[in-house]
Amino acid sequence: MKTEVAIIGGGPSGLLLSQLLNQAGVATVVLERSSRDHVLSRIRAGVLEAGTVDMLREAGVGERMAREGIPHEGCYLTDDDLMVRINFEELTGTSVMVYGQTEVTTDLYKAQDAIGATIIHGVEDVVIHDADSNAPYVEYTLNGARIRLDCAYVAGCDGFHGVSRKTIPADKRREFERVYPFGWLGVLSRTKPAHEELIYANSSNGFALASMRSETLSRYYVQVPLTDKVDEWSDERFWATLKSCLPFEVADTMQTGPSIEKSIAPLRSFVSEPLRWGRLFLVGDAAHIVPPTGAKGLNLAVSDVHYLYQALIDAVKKGDTAGIDAYSERALLRIWKAMRFSWQMTTMLHHFDGEDSFAAQMRKSTLRHLSQSETARRDLAENYIGLPF
Amino acid sequence: MKTEVAIIGGGPSGLLLSQLLNQAGVATVVLERSSRDHVLSRIRAGVLEAGTVDMLREAGVGERMAREGIPHEGCYLTDDDLMVRINFEELTGTSVMVYGQTEVTTDLYKAQDAIGATIIHGVEDVVIHDADSNAPYVEYTLNGARIRLDCAYVAGCDGFHGVSRKTIPADKRREFERVYPFGWLGVLSRTKPAHEELIYANSSNGFALASMRSETLSRYYVQVPLTDKVDEWSDERFWATLKSCLPFEVADTMQTGPSIEKSIAPLRSFVSEPLRWGRLFLVGDAAHIVPPTGAKGLNLAVSDVHYLYQALIDAVKKGDTAGIDAYSERALLRIWKAMRFSWQMTTMLHHFDGEDSFAAQMRKSTLRHLSQSETARRDLAENYIGLPF
Repeated sequence: MKTEVAIIGGGPSGLLLSQLLNQAGVATVVLERSSRDHVLSRIRAGVLEAGTVDMLREAGVGERMAREGIPHEGCYLTDDDLMVRINFEELTGTSVMVYGQTEVTTDLYKAQDAIGATIIHGVEDVVIHDADSNAPYVEYTLNGARIRLDCAYVAGCDGFHGVSRKTIPADKRREFERVYPFGWLGVLSRTKPAHEELIYANSSNGFALASMRSETLSRYYVQVPLTDKVDEWSDERFWATLKSCLPFEVADTMQTGPSIEKSIAPLRSFVSEPLRWGRLFLVGDAAHIVPPTGAKGLNLAVSDVHYLYQALIDAVKKGDTAGIDAYSERALLRIWKAMRFSWQMTTMLHHFDGEDSFAAQMRKSTLRHLSQSETARRDLAENYIGLPF
Repeated sequence: MKTEVAIIGGGPSGLLLSQLLNQAGVATVVLERSSRDHVLSRIRAGVLEAGTVDMLREAGVGERMAREGIPHEGCYLTDDDLMVRINFEELTGTSVMVYGQTEVTTDLYKAQDAIGATIIHGVEDVVIHDADSNAPYVEYTLNGARIRLDCAYVAGCDGFHGVSRKTIPADKRREFERVYPFGWLGVLSRTKPAHEELIYANSSNGFALASMRSETLSRYYVQVPLTDKVDEWSDERFWATLKSCLPFEVADTMQTGPSIEKSIAPLRSFVSEPLRWGRLFLVGDAAHIVPPTGAKGLNLAVSDVHYLYQALIDAVKKGDTAGIDAYSERALLRIWKAMRFSWQMTTMLHHFDGEDSFAAQMRKSTLRHLSQSETARRDLAENYIGLPF
């Protein structure tokens, strides 16, 4: 089999890249380990930056998002005493869009199907060969058969645990990592969201986030020790803990109900540099992970696609490699900015076990600074809505 | 002996408070442990916020400062690759004044002498009695004699190690502390400053600060382990280390010379709440310490004096206690903002032993964010030049 760009991974970044390349007449094959149903069952991010919204529109998948997505003109940061609104619209002239990753992926599959793109599910034992040569190829097993896919370029969109990053020899990459000493216990429930905007709560009982996927689907998180197991968290315990972290006026009136998904995720900051090795390009989680505080994960994957797709079109169509030569550096500049913001939001909002009493005072003081300084709120807003590409 | 306000400590905050009270006709006695020469030999802060400059003018000691002080319209933050200018004047419409604490203290002594204020040097074994009653008094030993000073109020301006804070019963105060795992080795030299503005350098060799006291007197610092001793640091070693931390174009041309003062100071954030116990009021370092990164120490002491002096005048002259009742809360609001800023500057600019590789990347990313975001620079500038009283 032969294609122009082999895309490893059929999550949102792989699908978006495939869609944008196909629209420009560049042939792709998307290889995905899981079934489509499994991909669509992943509950992930839900806050899209304006730049992400633009990219999705450019890929022709903006229609349902425009109808069903919920524009958010601000969010709240709170602690036990204060509720600070960050007014994105007023501070930056733009806003973000709440539209679940599942919906984005659904729309991208539909669009890919409509143009007859090749997405192969259930592939196993993917190996990327000769990525540092002019003739790379990918081998994989499908239904017991070993298949070879020749290509001009390989895009590694296969996430943190995927094969793409590991294909780059260890001595050719540099990794940076921070593992935070807590996780997020997330619950999805068919309830009216506690508030019409997101609430990032730094309370004396720990961090909580009140967010949503739609007007009838709420997504909540509380900070938990990494040693906790999901089955130690009954719905009752979850709701009681969440309410103890949220401002009273929100907790007091919020709707609760049975959880329809409940999981614990660790928080990690991770970057592997560079994003390119020969004809292999890393995209999104394959090269970098942010903690979810600040909602940068999906947006950053889309940002990588932004820098990569035109570069690949130029390389395939015109033999112009300036774009792909610059890809790693350009994408990393923006990645590190989002890493900084996500780390700052995480540090500012979470309780760290064993911390001194000064640490909690610094979190309180940071929130007070935000409440009193428009400049500080603007800095947060500019980063939250997404720095320019 | 009898006075209206007994002031413990004859450093800049005690002298400034005394001067402002005397100007309003409130009698004071300043009790200072050391000789005047010793007080004046302390090498301390040199960057005055605009609000501090205003307060000194109000106290009638602005004349020499206006003549000899050096207005700074900006400063630099650097790392191995970047030099970011923070343009205070452009970002905030105001600037800071470089004028050494020694000069401020000299001017205040002169002004106090001119109005015949009572400053008693060489006092020992100061004890504050009955501060929580309506008739407090201070006892001290001078030339072997035990002396009693009756007063209406006591201002504790006697620094971190002074008796004032410890006079408040332990169960009536709450302390917050962060001890940083490094110190600053400071050198004073009669050399032309390396740069006309201050340079805060975060390099791979650690933190350094290039500052000045005048156009012929430079003050430099490098980050050192707390276990280092001054006599392990020859001038040669100091200059070599300093140069290795500063941007090449600065290090390459800077003037060096013999040190005329060399000392190691630990970095600490500390707050004791509240600032009031009965008729005793804590001012400056007696209640709070900031690490020197960001130059808030002296400015914060002056800020306390700002909130206290009118309150004491109202209490003494009119029996109006609203001001002194509000003092602790009002002063602490501003103190915690400066604590946050000093902590952030310290964290952002120093290497921490044992840190992961991600930490250095976050410092680099923060500097890059500052270089690219006017909003971030404005936030730093607004805090550096001093938040409003």
